[in-house]
Amino acid sequence: MARAHIDMELRWGDQDRYGHVNNVAYARYLEEARVRVFGMGSAREATGMEGHFRDEDHGGSKMLVANQQIEFLGVLEYAKQPITVELWIGRLGGSSLEVHYEVVDGSAAERRVVARAVTTMVIVDGETLRPVRLSDEGRTAVEPWTDAPVRMRRG
Amino acid sequence: MARAHIDMELRWGDQDRYGHVNNVAYARYLEEARVRVFGMGSAREATGMEGHFRDEDHGGSKMLVANQQIEFLGVLEYAKQPITVELWIGRLGGSSLEVHYEVVDGSAAERRVVARAVTTMVIVDGETLRPVRLSDEGRTAVEPWTDAPVRMRRG
Amino acid sequence: MARAHIDMELRWGDQDRYGHVNNVAYARYLEEARVRVFGMGSAREATGMEGHFRDEDHGGSKMLVANQQIEFLGVLEYAKQPITVELWIGRLGGSSLEVHYEVVDGSAAERRVVARAVTTMVIVDGETLRPVRLSDEGRTAVEPWTDAPVRMRRG
Amino acid sequence: MARAHIDMELRWGDQDRYGHVNNVAYARYLEEARVRVFGMGSAREATGMEGHFRDEDHGGSKMLVANQQIEFLGVLEYAKQPITVELWIGRLGGSSLEVHYEVVDGSAAERRVVARAVTTMVIVDGETLRPVRLSDEGRTAVEPWTDAPVRMRRG
Repeated sequence: MARAHIDMELRWGDQDRYGHVNNVAYARYLEEARVRVFGMGSAREATGMEGHFRDEDHGGSKMLVANQQIEFLGVLEYAKQPITVELWIGRLGGSSLEVHYEVVDGSAAERRVVARAVTTMVIVDGETLRPVRLSDEGRTAVEPWTDAPVRMRRG
Repeated sequence: MARAHIDMELRWGDQDRYGHVNNVAYARYLEEARVRVFGMGSAREATGMEGHFRDEDHGGSKMLVANQQIEFLGVLEYAKQPITVELWIGRLGGSSLEVHYEVVDGSAAERRVVARAVTTMVIVDGETLRPVRLSDEGRTAVEPWTDAPVRMRRG
Repeated sequence: MARAHIDMELRWGDQDRYGHVNNVAYARYLEEARVRVFGMGSAREATGMEGHFRDEDHGGSKMLVANQQIEFLGVLEYAKQPITVELWIGRLGGSSLEVHYEVVDGSAAERRVVARAVTTMVIVDGETLRPVRLSDEGRTAVEPWTDAPVRMRRG
Repeated sequence: MARAHIDMELRWGDQDRYGHVNNVAYARYLEEARVRVFGMGSAREATGMEGHFRDEDHGGSKMLVANQQIEFLGVLEYAKQPITVELWIGRLGGSSLEVHYEVVDGSAAERRVVARAVTTMVIVDGETLRPVRLSDEGRTAVEPWTDAPVRMRRG
């Protein structure tokens, strides 16, 4: 029912020659949001979702991106205010989970969503890269952060 | 009925700490493929699609990414052989067009598709960023490069 | 006599396949530090150095990198703690200025310098790209942030 | 006495909001040139320098960047023609070597050097990251590619 909030600095270099934040940078923001939630446990909230799916330093398991869709709703300008990535679990499968997001412009006076996105993550064995089932602890951990799927115009 | 082919070098820096080409790099490859087709006219084929939708140096029009979906089918390793992005028009709207792609591993002996993708591009006025209708010349130019939509597992 | 301090988030994607922050990312950090000091005025201190040399949105002047040297003193690991870029003016020329830096690891208990760097910036006209003299206001603005040159082992 | 030549594609995304290839991209080009020479053996010439200093997949040794200096001589525009990185060994130490470069614009009619650079590489043990002595085979391999140091205006 709740969303994790990840505040994230923009970099001047995220802009392209059009003078806006480039679409490729958004994919980087989503990756960083996932790492902070599932790896570092450094979102604004103590979500308890870290450490269940990624164990990169011990070869235990990895989260691979199987599919990612991003809808761009408006132009984002480089600014000193951090953006906020709102992140939740939109669907839970046997060995996969869907991460849903809204990206909020930090420099706008009102809440302005500049992008919506969905990433399908597959949990795989660190060596074989074969899918492994989500553990019961992992399922329990993400349950409080599960909510209705984000709505996009397309797809 | 035909696809444009864009051969593209990988960079060692496209890899992440997992030792594979990172998902964010794929978004960069797709951008580069679009620029070469719609801006530079430097695909393997002389497609004639360049210069109709992008006019960045004269402020005439820009192509903005409205939506992008990428399906990752396999791990891509850094190699000296270029990948090939196959690109075609999957759908044509009033002021938008859908660019469809298959990304082919250049180091595999047989044709191995490592990703499929769709980008919805909106043609906008360079100043106001408002959508503008595709010109008749633009429509005529892309017609020979229009084909059935790419099939993804999801969406 | 004083240094500007710019706290900066790392990104997981700054790492390379060796699992450390890649040398190229350091160049990005230095750029971001300069933009925050000379463009945004968003360093930890109110330095007053912003707006004198960059006027990118009005075509007035640009700061171009003429030379950059970075000395890497230790491995930097991705962490949730921001690094701190310490920045000062090490030398002032007619139409150029040398920006000197120390990059400090944010996750170490004691002050650990992971890199030292010097960038020679040339102030150029936004249209012709020809060097222009630093204004008197610009000189006055940077004076309090001028200090002895950083010492590197080489060069 | 000879230089290795590495032809390298530009990417549209290497440009910044000024519309030129950004200085950070140059650091990426130099990295890629080193990988192709010392890792892949895919320069224009068969140099025989590959495999002596990098053994990343077997944990044997790594080449770390200890110092890098780049002098920017002119603006580089995105173009379809690849740039050429000319690379040679400018100095050889006990456990380090200096890689020297000139970066040549591929779209200019005459040879136009847009950057000169020097990277001091230290060969380290893959586990301990401690410097290890260059092997005799390594020394013999690089000898034919050793030449006078590149000359920069500064440093």
